[in-house]
Amino acid sequence: MQDAEIIAVGSEMLTSQRIDTNSLYIADQLNALGVEVRRKLIVGDDRPLLTDAIRSALEHAGLVILTGGLGPTEDDVTRQAVADALDRKLIFSQEICDGIEERFRRRQRKMAEINKRQAYVVEGAEVLPNPNGTAPAQWIEHQGRVVIMLPGPPGELKPLFAKECVPRLMKLLPAQVIRARFYRVTGLTESDLDALIAPVYTKYTNPSTTILASPGDIQIHLRARCGSAEDAERLLAEVGGPIEELLGRHLFSLNGDPLEAIVGTLLRERGATLSVAESCTGGMVGERITAIAGSSDYFVGGFVTYTDRLKIDLLGVDSELIAQHSAVSKEVARAMAEGARNRTGSTFAISITGEAGPESSTGAPVGTIFVGFAGPDGSPEALRFAMPGDRPRIRGFATQAALDLLRRRLLKLD
Amino acid sequence: MQDAEIIAVGSEMLTSQRIDTNSLYIADQLNALGVEVRRKLIVGDDRPLLTDAIRSALEHAGLVILTGGLGPTEDDVTRQAVADALDRKLIFSQEICDGIEERFRRRQRKMAEINKRQAYVVEGAEVLPNPNGTAPAQWIEHQGRVVIMLPGPPGELKPLFAKECVPRLMKLLPAQVIRARFYRVTGLTESDLDALIAPVYTKYTNPSTTILASPGDIQIHLRARCGSAEDAERLLAEVGGPIEELLGRHLFSLNGDPLEAIVGTLLRERGATLSVAESCTGGMVGERITAIAGSSDYFVGGFVTYTDRLKIDLLGVDSELIAQHSAVSKEVARAMAEGARNRTGSTFAISITGEAGPESSTGAPVGTIFVGFAGPDGSPEALRFAMPGDRPRIRGFATQAALDLLRRRLLKLD
Repeated sequence: MQDAEIIAVGSEMLTSQRIDTNSLYIADQLNALGVEVRRKLIVGDDRPLLTDAIRSALEHAGLVILTGGLGPTEDDVTRQAVADALDRKLIFSQEICDGIEERFRRRQRKMAEINKRQAYVVEGAEVLPNPNGTAPAQWIEHQGRVVIMLPGPPGELKPLFAKECVPRLMKLLPAQVIRARFYRVTGLTESDLDALIAPVYTKYTNPSTTILASPGDIQIHLRARCGSAEDAERLLAEVGGPIEELLGRHLFSLNGDPLEAIVGTLLRERGATLSVAESCTGGMVGERITAIAGSSDYFVGGFVTYTDRLKIDLLGVDSELIAQHSAVSKEVARAMAEGARNRTGSTFAISITGEAGPESSTGAPVGTIFVGFAGPDGSPEALRFAMPGDRPRIRGFATQAALDLLRRRLLKLD
Repeated sequence: MQDAEIIAVGSEMLTSQRIDTNSLYIADQLNALGVEVRRKLIVGDDRPLLTDAIRSALEHAGLVILTGGLGPTEDDVTRQAVADALDRKLIFSQEICDGIEERFRRRQRKMAEINKRQAYVVEGAEVLPNPNGTAPAQWIEHQGRVVIMLPGPPGELKPLFAKECVPRLMKLLPAQVIRARFYRVTGLTESDLDALIAPVYTKYTNPSTTILASPGDIQIHLRARCGSAEDAERLLAEVGGPIEELLGRHLFSLNGDPLEAIVGTLLRERGATLSVAESCTGGMVGERITAIAGSSDYFVGGFVTYTDRLKIDLLGVDSELIAQHSAVSKEVARAMAEGARNRTGSTFAISITGEAGPESSTGAPVGTIFVGFAGPDGSPEALRFAMPGDRPRIRGFATQAALDLLRRRLLKLD
C-alpha cells in the first residue's frame, strides 16, 4: 500500500491534444499520505491492453488507481477491464441506475438507454458516490491490494478523491501526520525566487519543498511528515519563518488562495468596492474576480474598452491624452482607472492597457503593459511592465500585476 | 512497427512538478507517420521496474521509445535497463567518450570521470549523434522490433528525433497517408451526441473516431489512414458527411477552431462589430473573444454589470424591469444586449445574466442562465437555460451558449 501506480484511460491522452493532469493531483495527494507513485501509465480505450496493464500494475504496486473510461459509450472500457483483470463479474446496480435517472430528471431530461452502462459494478466493489457526475467511483480490495476506479473529469475526480478515497486510504496506512504550508508569490522570476530562498530550504529534506511556477504566480509547498502534529508544525515554522521574511511583499498568499481571493477578502474587510477597466485583457480581470463565490459583496462591475472610442465614450478618457501618449501609456491607464471609479462609484478601480501581440498595433513593443489604480486617497497612478512570452502569457501576467497592485495598495505596502 | 509505446524515465515526472511533454511531440510525429501510440508509461529511476516495463512494451508494440535516463549519474538507468531487457551487454565506446571530452574542451571545461557512463552502448546498437548534448541516442533492432533511446531534454530530443529517427522509421514503414477531420459541437450532451452519431461511426474502424467532452464543447476527431490521400479523403467524406448532417446546427467548427474564433471569422466576413454585456460571467465572454489575435477587427468592448445599479446606469436597463422580473430574467437579458449595442454603437451585442451559485442570491435556481442577443434586424431576444454543475461549469456553459447564439444568428440558423 506504500507504492501506487496510476493508470489514465483514454485514447485522447495519447495524442498531443490532451494531457493527463489528474495524475498530478493524485500524485500530490498520495505523496501527502506517504504513498509513493512508482509508475504512471496512459492507455487508450483498448480493453485487452488495459486488462493487461491492470494485471501488471497489481504485480508491482499495492494501490492501483484508474482514471477515466467510466463514461456511457462503447469506448469506455475501464469497468470491464478491471472485472477481467480481477476475474470478477460486472453486476448491474438498480440503485446506481436510479440515481443516474434522477440526475437527468432534475435537469428535466430523460436518461438515454446508453447511460445504463454506467450502472455496472465490479463484483464486491464498494461504490463511492459522485455528486458531480453520472459515473460513481468504485473501490475494490483484492488480495491485500486496493484498486480504485475514478471518473475522468477533474471536476468530478478531485472532490471524490478528497472526500471518499483519502479517508479510506488513511485508515489503511501507518499513522503519520502531515502538515503543510502553501505560499504563493508574485513579482519574482522563478530563478530569482530560488536564489533567494534555496539557502534556507535546501538544508532540510523534511519538510520537503516543492516550487511550481506559472505566469506571475509561483507556488511554494512545504510539507512536513512527522509522528506528531506538534513536531510537524515546529519544523514548518523553522523553515517557513525565514522564507516568509525573505519573500516580503512578494508573498501574497499564506494558505494557497489565489490573488483574486486574497484581494476579495481585503476588500470585504474594508467594506470597500471595486470596479475594473480592461483593454488588452478583454475581461480577464473581471472573470477572475467573479470566479470567487460571494464576489458580489465587493465587485460592482466594469468596462471592456477594446477600442479608443470606447475608452473615450465609456470611461471619459480625454481623446487628447490618447492622441498625445497613445492608448498604451501610463497616462491612459491612470485615466481609465479614474474613469471606472467615477462612472461606477466604486471605492477602488484598477485598469489595464497594453500590447499583448502577436503584432504591435500601437507602436509599443509587444509585452508593454500599463496597470492603473485609483482610490479615494491621492491621485490615480500607473505602473509600466515589459512582460515576456506570447499573447496568453502576457495577458495572464498583466491580470496578475493589476490584482497585485490593488493588493499592495489595500495593504499600504511599498 | 505500426504500434508504439513511449516510456518516459525519471522520478521527477511522478510528482506534480514536471510533466512529460516529450511524449506529446513524439506522439504527433509518430501519428504523422501512421504509427499509433498505444501506451505511454512514466517510470521512476528504478532499474528493475524499468527493465520489466521495457520487456512488457516489447510484447505489445513493435516500436518502443525511451526518453530520459541517459545522464551521467547513478540515477540514470535507461542504458542498463535496455541492455537487461534485451539480454545484451553494455559496451564502452572510446569514440563517444572522445566526443564528450571534446565537447567539454570546447567550453573550456574538463570532463568529469562520471561522464564516461554516457559512453556505454547497448551491444549492436546504432549510435545517433546528439549535437546538443553529451548523451547520444541509440537505435536498436531486436527480433523485428525497434527500441530507441533518446535523451530527456526537449532541446536535444526534438532535433535528434526529427533528423535521425523519422527518416529511419520512414524506411521501415509502409507508405501511408493520414488525413483527419476535427469537429466541434455545442448544445448537445455527450450521451445525446453519441446516441445520434454512433450508428454511423461504429460501422468503421478506419477512420477512427474519438469523442472528447468539456462543458458546452464536444470534440469529434476522425482519422483515416490509407495508402493514398484520395482514399483517406474519400473515407473521411463517407463517415464525416452523414455525421455533419446529423449534427446540423449543433456543429460549429469543421477545423477544430474554438467558438470564439468561429464567430470572429463570421463577424469579420460581414464587416460587423460586437459588444458584450456580462453579469454572472464577469468578463469571461470578452476574455475569450479577445484571446483571438486580431479580434480588434470586430470587437469593440463591453460591460461587466455585476450589480443591478450598473445594469441601470451603464446599460440603461429600466429599474422597473428589474423590480418586476428580477435581474435574472429574459426581459433583463434582452435589455442588457440592447443597452450594450446602443451605448457602443456595435452591429451586434450579446448578454448574459444568471445565477452561477453556489447559492442563489436572486431566488432563481442555481444554473438558471439567460443569454441575450441584439442586432440591426428585429427585436432583441433572449434564451433561457438550466445549466448543470458547479460555478465554473455553469459560467463556462453560459459563455458558450452566448457565443453560440451569436453564431446562429450570424448564420441565420434556426
